[in-house]
Amino acid sequence: MFAGQEQQAELQLQQALYNQEQHTVGEVYVIGAGPGAADLLTFRALRLMQQADVVVYDRLVSPEILDLVRRDAEKIYVGKERDHHTVPQENINTLLAELAKSGKRVARLKGGDPFIFGRGGEEIETLMQQGVQFQVVPGITAASGCASYAGIPLTHRDHAQSVTFVTGHLKNDSINLNWTQLAAANQTVVVYMGLVGIEKICNALIAHGSPSDFPIALVQEGTMQNQRVITGTLSTLPQLIANAQIKPPTLIIIGTVVTLHKQLNWFQTKGN
Amino acid sequence: MFAGQEQQAELQLQQALYNQEQHTVGEVYVIGAGPGAADLLTFRALRLMQQADVVVYDRLVSPEILDLVRRDAEKIYVGKERDHHTVPQENINTLLAELAKSGKRVARLKGGDPFIFGRGGEEIETLMQQGVQFQVVPGITAASGCASYAGIPLTHRDHAQSVTFVTGHLKNDSINLNWTQLAAANQTVVVYMGLVGIEKICNALIAHGSPSDFPIALVQEGTMQNQRVITGTLSTLPQLIANAQIKPPTLIIIGTVVTLHKQLNWFQTKGN
Repeated sequence: MFAGQEQQAELQLQQALYNQEQHTVGEVYVIGAGPGAADLLTFRALRLMQQADVVVYDRLVSPEILDLVRRDAEKIYVGKERDHHTVPQENINTLLAELAKSGKRVARLKGGDPFIFGRGGEEIETLMQQGVQFQVVPGITAASGCASYAGIPLTHRDHAQSVTFVTGHLKNDSINLNWTQLAAANQTVVVYMGLVGIEKICNALIAHGSPSDFPIALVQEGTMQNQRVITGTLSTLPQLIANAQIKPPTLIIIGTVVTLHKQLNWFQTKGN
Repeated sequence: MFAGQEQQAELQLQQALYNQEQHTVGEVYVIGAGPGAADLLTFRALRLMQQADVVVYDRLVSPEILDLVRRDAEKIYVGKERDHHTVPQENINTLLAELAKSGKRVARLKGGDPFIFGRGGEEIETLMQQGVQFQVVPGITAASGCASYAGIPLTHRDHAQSVTFVTGHLKNDSINLNWTQLAAANQTVVVYMGLVGIEKICNALIAHGSPSDFPIALVQEGTMQNQRVITGTLSTLPQLIANAQIKPPTLIIIGTVVTLHKQLNWFQTKGN
């Protein structure tokens, strides 16, 4: 063995020992990747994405954002689509814990914010129970992103003194929400994952006292170049959407703030 | 005049013409600066902060974040404190429009998100009326930031299927909120600016059906090195806070998700 080779072998050994040492301190970063546009990532999110050895990501994380993870990081897709859970939540929780226990720094990338309909709480409960270190990085939730880019303030002195976030998930073909609460005045209601249930949502609100001409908007691919905003009323929106060939991700905003969209719509998209 | 001086004079003239040209295209960037920690800024926010000629900022924008604006940008403070409005909102709206019309690129920096209790809607309405171009950059709202850094998920399968944001502003010594709605089960309620009214808030919730031992947390300086989290119940928290010498900014989280804080509290602060 030549001297140069010997040196190189020693360097390799040192590197291996260093890696092994790192492998004893795995950790999970539960990261909100925001509403879609890559420049709505936070600095903290990017820094941790670039430290990670492995990235576990959802369907709602855009390709532009996934491109920003460390080049050589392993990428694991665990996205969910309606009626088609690629990986059950329990398995994701366990996967994160196992990866970290094998010494990996794991970036758990989620669309939006991990603690607003992101099931981040369940994931870190498992990590905590298994003694795995973690941190949580908040992200711009879809409601904030879509509201800003659609020119629809979620609160406004003249319109809404509060804002409520719910999901429109169907369970046994119905949506279990406190409709009386959601039909009350002077508030904004944001529905995540409400596209499939839109007609049931509109009908339930009308049945619980909302005027049938109450303003409602659907935002498709909010913050992205393909963003579309469709506004209507509780009685007209379901049909408008049926005609418009809408695709997820979508967000629904209900309240008189929606009337401001026409004036305050500043974001130039491909379509306009 | 020497040749070098002549050249320099011409450069200065060109620069002046260039500046004048720019001065015809003033614009306002309404930017959410997030909950406090500088690394929770978005890339888009920073990019626009570095383009701005003038920055108009609130009390809730931290010095670390203000340090990130362009070095030579003019800085105008319009912060508000309770009972002590430094600049009335109408004047802020007008100021932004005037600055932009004089050709300046104006960064309007706000704590949190401009469209969640940020009065961003009112500001851009004035801009729109006066024909001033603007864009809106969403920020991490205080609720997201504090929740993530306190280990309190805002939604959780076992605890809360929805989350509502309200403000605890006192008006004529009372707080005008839909208490019946806020006292309902299976939700999380987040109160912005609720420190002064905390006792009234707790009493009103109990009077409208919340159990007196219902969990509630106050987060002081969420996401910052001085973060403090005080948890208790609707009957105990007001006294705990009175004893703890709490300072704004604070955020209040109400709901059984608060019970998860003890386990999921991952953020190492100066105090622990």
